[in-house]
Amino acid sequence: MEKTPPLAGKLWLVGAGPGDPDLLTLRAARLLTRADLVVHDGLVSDDVLALIPPDVERVSVAKQRSRHSMRQEKINELLVREARAGKQVVRLKGGDPFIFGRGGEELDAAREAGIDCEVVPGITAAAGCAAQAGLPLTHRADASAVSFVAGQCKDLTDQNWSGLAGHGRTLVIYMGLATASAIADKLITDGVSPGLPVAVIERGTAADARVLRTLLTDLGDLVEREAVKSPALIVVGKVAARADALDCLGAAAFTTSTRDFSCSF
Amino acid sequence: MEKTPPLAGKLWLVGAGPGDPDLLTLRAARLLTRADLVVHDGLVSDDVLALIPPDVERVSVAKQRSRHSMRQEKINELLVREARAGKQVVRLKGGDPFIFGRGGEELDAAREAGIDCEVVPGITAAAGCAAQAGLPLTHRADASAVSFVAGQCKDLTDQNWSGLAGHGRTLVIYMGLATASAIADKLITDGVSPGLPVAVIERGTAADARVLRTLLTDLGDLVEREAVKSPALIVVGKVAARADALDCLGAAAFTTSTRDFSCSF
Ligand SMILES: C[S@@+](CC[C@H](N)C(=O)[O-])C[C@H]1O[C@@H](n2cnc3c(N)ncnc32)[C@H](O)[C@@H]1O
Ligand SMILES: C[S@@+](CC[C@H](N)C(=O)[O-])C[C@H]1O[C@@H](n2cnc3c(N)ncnc32)[C@H](O)[C@@H]1O
Repeated sequence: MEKTPPLAGKLWLVGAGPGDPDLLTLRAARLLTRADLVVHDGLVSDDVLALIPPDVERVSVAKQRSRHSMRQEKINELLVREARAGKQVVRLKGGDPFIFGRGGEELDAAREAGIDCEVVPGITAAAGCAAQAGLPLTHRADASAVSFVAGQCKDLTDQNWSGLAGHGRTLVIYMGLATASAIADKLITDGVSPGLPVAVIERGTAADARVLRTLLTDLGDLVEREAVKSPALIVVGKVAARADALDCLGAAAFTTSTRDFSCSF
Repeated sequence: MEKTPPLAGKLWLVGAGPGDPDLLTLRAARLLTRADLVVHDGLVSDDVLALIPPDVERVSVAKQRSRHSMRQEKINELLVREARAGKQVVRLKGGDPFIFGRGGEELDAAREAGIDCEVVPGITAAAGCAAQAGLPLTHRADASAVSFVAGQCKDLTDQNWSGLAGHGRTLVIYMGLATASAIADKLITDGVSPGLPVAVIERGTAADARVLRTLLTDLGDLVEREAVKSPALIVVGKVAARADALDCLGAAAFTTSTRDFSCSF
C-alpha cells in the first residue's frame, strides 16, 4: 500500500482466515499494519486482532443475528464514509471475503460510491478445517467435486442439496449447527445415504479445535451430545471418514473405495 | 518448526496459493525458510520459489500428463524416504493441498509409513481468481452454494454437474480448459441455461492475468478465440456477470436478481 495523497481513500476487503493468525496471507498481515482503520467481524479471532498495531483505529461490527440486512447497510455506509474521508480502510472478515462473507455486497457498495476497492482472499474455513483434520476435500479415489453451502436458512425445504452429496462428492456446510438435524433429515429424505460419513470440526485451526466423526443419520444427535459450539463446519462425504477424529465412532464401518472417477487431478 | 532430534523427520504438505507470493500464508512463508528440502510442483510460481533460501535443497516434480499415477507413487516414495532420513520436508503445492492437489494421497503415504505429517492450507485458485476479478463466489442475491469440480476427465458423460450449476449456484471448474467446449455442451444438454454467465480467469493473481466473460453457450469459442492458456479457471453462474472483465461481451444482457435465497449469511 503506497502512501496516497489525502482524500484518495481506499477500501480493502481482506480475508482473515479461519482463526489461526499464522494462516493470514502475507498481504493481509502487511495491510493490518498499514491501515488507517480496521473494521472487523465478530468471527475474526483475538489472535488475529492482536496483529493490528495499537495506533491503528479499530471498529467491531459483530453481527446481530436478528437484524442482518439493516446492519449490512450500516456497515456499507461506514466503509464508504471512511474511505471517502481519505482513509485506507481494511474490512477484515473471517475466512475468505467472497465465501459466505458478504464481500460482494461491500464491493458493490464501494463500486456504486466510486471508491477504489481491492479484495484480498483468505483461507476459507473449509480449507483450514480440512488441513487441520487431515481430511482431503477432494481425493482421486473418493471425491471429484466439493461444494460449500450455507445451512443458516429460513426454510430448508427450499434447498436441494442431495445432488451435492453422495458418491464422489464432498458437501461442506457452513453455519449449519443450529439446523444440523434438519439438514441431515432433508438430505436423507432426498436420497442421500444415511450411512454416509460426516465430520464436524469445531473452532477449526484453533489449539482447542475438536474434530468429531459420525454417520449422516447421527449428525443431529452428535451435535447435541457433544454440545458443539459455533463456529463449526460440517463435512458430509466419504472423505470425512479420513479425518483424524477425536471421536472415531463408526470409523471401522468405512472402507476406502478403489474406484476412481477417471478424473486425473 | 522446532529443531527436532536427528532422524525425526517430518513432512509438511503446504499450499503455495495461486501464484502471487503475497498470498502465501505466514506459516507457509516461514516453513520455506526453515525446511531442509522443498519438493514442489510445476504449478508453483517462480515468484513463490524465489522465497526459498539458496541453501535449502529443492526438487521439482512437475507432472507429466501421460503418466500421472506412476509419478504420484514416485513422489510419495521420495517424500517418505527423505523424511525418514530425518529431513524437514516441505511438499509445496499450487493453491490448497486438499483441493485437486493430491494432498490426500501424500498424507496417506506418510500415515502408512508412520511419518509425522502436517497440512498447511493455501489460497485455492477459486478464491484467488475471484478476489482479483471482483467476482463473489457466493452472494445473498445470486448464489447460496459454490462447487469446485475437475474438468480434466477421461469421460465427461460420466459427470453430472447440472445440479451444481444454475439458479443460486456457482460452479467453478478447475483444469477445464482442454474440455471447455465439451463441458459447456454437456451442461446445456443436462438442462443448464445456455445464457448463463461465465467468466474465465487466466493466470489469476498474476500481474498479467486476464478475466474474460461470456455466456455458457459461447465458452468453447471464447477459449479458442482468445487462445486462453493454462492455468485457467472457469466460473459458471450469475455471479460471473459481476466480474471486472477485460472483455465485457454480453455483459449488458445480465441483470441482477433481487430475490434472495432466504439464507442469511
Ligand atoms: C458467516 S460464515 C463466514 C465464512 C467465512 N467467510 C469463510 O470463508 O470461512 C461463518 C461460518 O463459517 C464457518 N467457520 C468459520 N470459521 C470457522 C472455524 N474456525 N472452524 C469451523 N468453522 C468455521 C462456520 O460454519 C461459521 O458458522
Ligand atoms: C491440479 S489443479 C491444482 C489446484 C490447486 N490445488 C488449488 O487449490 O488451486 C490445477 C488447476 O488449478 C487452476 N489454477 C491454479 N492456479 C491458477 C491460477 N493462478 N489461475 C487460474 N487457475 C488456476 C487451473 O484450473 C489449473 O488447471
